Amino acid sequence: MSIRIGIYGYGNLGRGIENAIRQNPDMELVAVFTRRDPASVRINTGTAVVVSSASVLDYVGKIDVMLICGGSATDLPGQTPALARHFSVVDSFDTHARIPEHFKNVDAAAKEGGNVAMISVGWDPGMFSLNRLYAGAILPDGADYTFWGKGVSQGHSDAIRRIDGVLDAKQYTIPVPAALDAVRRGDAPTLTTREKHTRECFVVAKEGADLSRIEKEIKEMPNYFADYDTTVHFISKEELQRDHSGIPHGGVVIRSGKTGKDLEHSHVIEYSLKLDSNPEFTASVIVAFARAAARLQGEGVTGCKTVFDIPPAYLSPKSYDELLHIL
Amino acid sequence: MSIRIGIYGYGNLGRGIENAIRQNPDMELVAVFTRRDPASVRINTGTAVVVSSASVLDYVGKIDVMLICGGSATDLPGQTPALARHFSVVDSFDTHARIPEHFKNVDAAAKEGGNVAMISVGWDPGMFSLNRLYAGAILPDGADYTFWGKGVSQGHSDAIRRIDGVLDAKQYTIPVPAALDAVRRGDAPTLTTREKHTRECFVVAKEGADLSRIEKEIKEMPNYFADYDTTVHFISKEELQRDHSGIPHGGVVIRSGKTGKDLEHSHVIEYSLKLDSNPEFTASVIVAFARAAARLQGEGVTGCKTVFDIPPAYLSPKSYDELLHIL
Repeated sequence: MSIRIGIYGYGNLGRGIENAIRQNPDMELVAVFTRRDPASVRINTGTAVVVSSASVLDYVGKIDVMLICGGSATDLPGQTPALARHFSVVDSFDTHARIPEHFKNVDAAAKEGGNVAMISVGWDPGMFSLNRLYAGAILPDGADYTFWGKGVSQGHSDAIRRIDGVLDAKQYTIPVPAALDAVRRGDAPTLTTREKHTRECFVVAKEGADLSRIEKEIKEMPNYFADYDTTVHFISKEELQRDHSGIPHGGVVIRSGKTGKDLEHSHVIEYSLKLDSNPEFTASVIVAFARAAARLQGEGVTGCKTVFDIPPAYLSPKSYDELLHIL
Repeated sequence: MSIRIGIYGYGNLGRGIENAIRQNPDMELVAVFTRRDPASVRINTGTAVVVSSASVLDYVGKIDVMLICGGSATDLPGQTPALARHFSVVDSFDTHARIPEHFKNVDAAAKEGGNVAMISVGWDPGMFSLNRLYAGAILPDGADYTFWGKGVSQGHSDAIRRIDGVLDAKQYTIPVPAALDAVRRGDAPTLTTREKHTRECFVVAKEGADLSRIEKEIKEMPNYFADYDTTVHFISKEELQRDHSGIPHGGVVIRSGKTGKDLEHSHVIEYSLKLDSNPEFTASVIVAFARAAARLQGEGVTGCKTVFDIPPAYLSPKSYDELLHIL
């Protein structure tokens, strides 16, 4: 019997989940829930329906795991607890500083509803977090490094678009090669924000806009750009469309640590991702953890869970006997 | 209360575990068990004792987890089930093809004894297996690659040493850079054994030995070298000692896969290890999983477990609240 999935919110992430479900024969998409007029939303799965999010409770008992695709800033803090009262759910809440608070709210709601709720599933938080945990447990004497990119940062691109005179923009976060090399050698350097990443911006300006003022506003923007070496390129709308329409991303988690009687031996553990599509990869991670959520639900587990709680075997469609052969 | 550890077998791996325990304040080494005369074995932990392996059952109730450091060929198939009847245990059984059989034997013994027995813990099998599982669950449409090295292969070094006229030898396994590059680009190539790795041998020959005969015997040795491009260097005993006394190793697990409506997007997931000391790193992995074994034991879990069964949080000495902050 396949795992019946609902997608709550149909943007880039929701569409990625729909595609990922087609790659997993043990899963079945039942419905996509949207705040828009359902008649206006076209999906790619003939066997699934599009339903107004206002009618989501009609699907209690018809969906095993609801995959919530809202944004972390304003959607998920409300949506995940609300839905966890009625469904087992997975979200990709990624505001790191607010995870403990989100966990607490979701845990109470999921326990009240007798459901499993997995939060913060994706690659960071998610697979990167797992790799930080594993590497830290193996090498207690060591240092952790996370580099992001090369990839598009949606938040930074949006920040540029809000500047007066800007029509459109795309921002790439890029690790500094020398920093990455030093970390990979096991040097365990202390690195400032500026030493770890650079930011490269491709900006389409309005005709007649003051380009040097825009460039200055970008480079001096606090939190977003002021602490980085930032490069700004002004390009045409056509160039932006032609060369920068993808949503690639990726990054690296590295731990270097010491072992031995006198800590005389160095080790470097590295996990890296190179992703053509950030939302589709995140979707693929979410779908694998949805399998685990369904299995935990079947075992009667309730409450909030994270990637740290899941026995890896629960993510795989393979039987345990099959898994022993790939050990 | 700290986790009381026993080390069963005191070679490179056992010494690595002793060092790793010192790096983990929640663990305490109680005793080292040896087949040698205990009086002849010097350990580095003043608070622990050296005991004959014949007296191991005297330590039932005094040790929480026994870490078994025998070899996979002849020691572990007998030792792990025998010890699992009396202790919770961890081993590093690494004969991949025989893991299902070992699992079955250990599972029966551990259940009989009411203990937890973790098998095949280390980096391959172990962390590499975990990464193959995670990546395969995330990217169902894809291809897996494992490269080993650059590092010393103990089995291949031993095989050279058995050749007539050879005094000593060290063999390095080295990934072929072009193959690694193709895999990292996401090309998903089909690779033969020869295309994936080369083998480099440093050999100390007896005076007057026929070097070209030795070189030919190495290069044509079935299973070990015949399927590889192999380089043989004859060096002096002093050079071997000076330049090749370490036991470095490492390797890479890569999965490249596709997502998207028409599988139009490529992703590459890579996990890599660069290790100064193969046995010390393996020991560090074992010690982290010993923490999980102790915790499972405390929950009343019994039977054989692998790295695939362990919720990652169980490996860490950090509290769950602390872990949420590194998610």
